Amino acid sequence: MKQKGKLPHKVTYIAYIASSIDGRISKSSQSNVGWTSKEDWNFFQKSLVKMDAVIVGRNTYKITADRLRRRNTIVLTSKINRAKIKDKVIFFNPEKSNLKKFLSSKGYKKVAILGGPKVYNFCLANKMLDELFVTIEPYIFTNGIPMFSSNTFKKYKFSLQSIKKLNKKGTILLHYKYGN
Amino acid sequence: MKQKGKLPHKVTYIAYIASSIDGRISKSSQSNVGWTSKEDWNFFQKSLVKMDAVIVGRNTYKITADRLRRRNTIVLTSKINRAKIKDKVIFFNPEKSNLKKFLSSKGYKKVAILGGPKVYNFCLANKMLDELFVTIEPYIFTNGIPMFSSNTFKKYKFSLQSIKKLNKKGTILLHYKYGN
Repeated sequence: MKQKGKLPHKVTYIAYIASSIDGRISKSSQSNVGWTSKEDWNFFQKSLVKMDAVIVGRNTYKITADRLRRRNTIVLTSKINRAKIKDKVIFFNPEKSNLKKFLSSKGYKKVAILGGPKVYNFCLANKMLDELFVTIEPYIFTNGIPMFSSNTFKKYKFSLQSIKKLNKKGTILLHYKYGN
Repeated sequence: MKQKGKLPHKVTYIAYIASSIDGRISKSSQSNVGWTSKEDWNFFQKSLVKMDAVIVGRNTYKITADRLRRRNTIVLTSKINRAKIKDKVIFFNPEKSNLKKFLSSKGYKKVAILGGPKVYNFCLANKMLDELFVTIEPYIFTNGIPMFSSNTFKKYKFSLQSIKKLNKKGTILLHYKYGN
């Protein structure tokens, strides 16, 4: 029997989030990173090596473009109608085209989700968040950008896989899987 | 030499916070607790026994009054000018009277801070937050009330004292101290 096409391709989506104790990921959507520990940065860089592509929002892309240069990068944006490709970067409007289909068609197996809050929420709401690595740095910000941003409250269940203390001052890394 | 009065009395302030992974403590300021694990509840109840008094905001008081009945309770509110006492509960406006002085004068040694976000922030901003117990339940809410609420971004440093896994599904308890 002739093979009619590729089998549907399973993509694993892994979100990486660095947060304060009080769940803030930055001061503002324009502000650069820079407040996280070098231990988190090392973990994050090591993890990215294993990824086939990364998904970011427009603001996150702006402040991290330099560092993502050599990676397959999908920038989610509502500002365009049709996907726009620029070297290894594709600007993609997930309301106009099917993002999951696109990622699968590219043959990606592991895709990292790097934020910001709307992108984390979009992926979670669309079953594109299988695993979650949350680094909690030992600060409280009392204001700033929250991890996830949505208009409605929902209760998504996760199960804790591991806890790791990354340094002496008390940066911790939590690994969760989606579901029970 | 005659003693002129009591020595200034050191009060230790300990905040208890139950949060989702994404730093939300409830759906809305009117909504009751009820989503946290029984293991967290047990830890919390055991801890309260050692406390001389608790501080809560007006909303938190409304939804927890039943359970705080037998405790010395300070309800922070901006709606009154002079402190109002009702059995073991005192309604107190910290902008009109000196809260630290009041607590010290009562002889309290350990005071628990139970939220909500404005009360946590008030205490943190006024050096009334020496220790912090954060329970992280394995959920993501994507919306709701944040742990701390302030109009300005600040970076308060904490140091991690311990991590404890409270149950199988992955509720964790983090203990921090204020400062380095």
